[in-house]
Amino acid sequence: MGELATPHGIIRTPAFMPVGTQGTVKAMTPEGLKSAGAEIVLGNAYHLYLRPGVETIRKMGGLHRFTGWDRPILTDSGGYQVFSLAELRKICEEGVTFQSHLDGSAHAFTPESVTELQMGLGADIIMCFDECIPYPSSRQYTEESTARTARWAKRCRDTFRGAGDGSQAIFGIVQGGTYADLRRRSAGELVVLGFDGYAIGGLAIGEPKEATWEAVASAAEQLPSDKPRYMMGVGFPEDIIQGVSLGVDMFDCVMPTRNARTGTLFTSSGKLAIKNARYSADESPVDQECDCYACRNFTRSYLRHLFMAGEMTGAMLATAHNLRFYLRMMEGMRGAIGGGRFAEWRDEFLYKYSSS
Amino acid sequence: MGELATPHGIIRTPAFMPVGTQGTVKAMTPEGLKSAGAEIVLGNAYHLYLRPGVETIRKMGGLHRFTGWDRPILTDSGGYQVFSLAELRKICEEGVTFQSHLDGSAHAFTPESVTELQMGLGADIIMCFDECIPYPSSRQYTEESTARTARWAKRCRDTFRGAGDGSQAIFGIVQGGTYADLRRRSAGELVVLGFDGYAIGGLAIGEPKEATWEAVASAAEQLPSDKPRYMMGVGFPEDIIQGVSLGVDMFDCVMPTRNARTGTLFTSSGKLAIKNARYSADESPVDQECDCYACRNFTRSYLRHLFMAGEMTGAMLATAHNLRFYLRMMEGMRGAIGGGRFAEWRDEFLYKYSSS
Repeated sequence: MGELATPHGIIRTPAFMPVGTQGTVKAMTPEGLKSAGAEIVLGNAYHLYLRPGVETIRKMGGLHRFTGWDRPILTDSGGYQVFSLAELRKICEEGVTFQSHLDGSAHAFTPESVTELQMGLGADIIMCFDECIPYPSSRQYTEESTARTARWAKRCRDTFRGAGDGSQAIFGIVQGGTYADLRRRSAGELVVLGFDGYAIGGLAIGEPKEATWEAVASAAEQLPSDKPRYMMGVGFPEDIIQGVSLGVDMFDCVMPTRNARTGTLFTSSGKLAIKNARYSADESPVDQECDCYACRNFTRSYLRHLFMAGEMTGAMLATAHNLRFYLRMMEGMRGAIGGGRFAEWRDEFLYKYSSS
Repeated sequence: MGELATPHGIIRTPAFMPVGTQGTVKAMTPEGLKSAGAEIVLGNAYHLYLRPGVETIRKMGGLHRFTGWDRPILTDSGGYQVFSLAELRKICEEGVTFQSHLDGSAHAFTPESVTELQMGLGADIIMCFDECIPYPSSRQYTEESTARTARWAKRCRDTFRGAGDGSQAIFGIVQGGTYADLRRRSAGELVVLGFDGYAIGGLAIGEPKEATWEAVASAAEQLPSDKPRYMMGVGFPEDIIQGVSLGVDMFDCVMPTRNARTGTLFTSSGKLAIKNARYSADESPVDQECDCYACRNFTRSYLRHLFMAGEMTGAMLATAHNLRFYLRMMEGMRGAIGGGRFAEWRDEFLYKYSSS
């Protein structure tokens, strides 16, 4: 359990960060996010760079003022997005050239430009530019790529130290694929460079679960205990709980928001496909234990109707609920850790969560 | 200016009713509707009959409990929807047979069944089943249809009186196309039957503006001054103001909500197409004079970004704004009427509204 102080307020850890790729968490307002208990959101530098562009956001007073979200923001460096472009990008020591997924226009990202981009957006926490390598990748390619990511991390850090006013923070990103020794080496190299926090990237991209946790554990043993650890792009409730068990402090994932829009709702007794006919006359709320706006005011029957009728209001209520579920789960974990009963909390939560 | 008392509260008139076709005003929650100042919403009996069905809504405790909206609800009889089906429906004295727009299944509506349907939904205000005839229609067809609508009105009233507990209200609907004498005759016949309020239907369906207002005036001269008058499916701000000038008390229209979803915003100085490039770095709110959540917290630049990026949050904020604009306009009119300065208010509003 910890507190991370930023210019826009304190983030209590373990923390879950709702994903606001394009300057909004989909189907949510800042007011709704606060009601759900979000203390930080994630924005994507790649998407914001392409649209509306950093110049527009700077003119509008930075990402916080632009989006109306006055609590902390962490921006992803775009590494994951750029490397997802596959055929549309080319990598070299200097950086990456790529084509926009929007209009095919040509762009280049370097560790320096991406650091400056995120500083310009006004993010509270800036992420190093890294290569997120696919699974599976050969040991040779993973070793080469991870070494380059370490060299890029130094360039990001130097740019950050040279231009910053000290109010922002920068996190390094551990890579190394599914090779435990490369994970350890990557983490060790970043620690020598010195960052405000350390992310573990390149996971939950198709590798077996055991490989995920081995990579996390390998990285974690090299990381200082007084700096936050952030597991990127994870995940299901059970994954987040497992991550916390291994000492991870921060998480982000599109899971709660994306699943909400397709009608998959998280509840204390497991996932629920709201479009299922069994809910057509179900008078109970989505989750009896939830205190969100949707659960306090509407039945499963009504939510099902909204989804069957294709009403946007369904996605809105489901998103508010799923985010509240995730954030309430984080609150539960923080309370349990503070009370010295995390293991009991975890066992009870998972027992109930797998009951339906 | 007036007050209409219902089991779910008072509606101050002139009133605008946001349209909640399928049991929700699109992209709005009941909480958001209250913030916007809505005192009544409209639901469509046709849509709710087909999905989720009146039985489901009854089991869930009626339309108010089902939708979480605890203020008044008026339900449309489905006449407009059924007659919009064109090739999919057949009309006779008894009623209408039609095919569902959802799955082609066969259904029949009669004045009796539609009245019972709306009573079963628990609407505060029930509308008679009428034929909404297209524009243009021959005098002969209009005369025949309007006479049948009057016979149907009697059957609706009789069903309502026979089965009701007195808590609900029922409105008749004046038809008569663009024939002033038929409008007068239709209104006169309804008044003899006796209803709690009178709607003027079959307008704003493509006829010239002068024909609209002649029809309204013709109907209005037959209607009692102590009962509410409701102009259905209207309209633009300037149309609503004109309607109020002619003594109309209630309006409904998809205009503010539908336009919001495509990025057309209403402001005190006219309509604004938010996707226009001129707003890309515009720091002002959508409407400087508006007190809605969107205008208090976001710039035109940000709203434009949300629309360009295809983010649902854009539709949500735009809907909240447009509805607040309409409802604030109604508040303005009520205040002006109460202060004996409606004509001045109207001239000033329209001067400003047409300025951009």
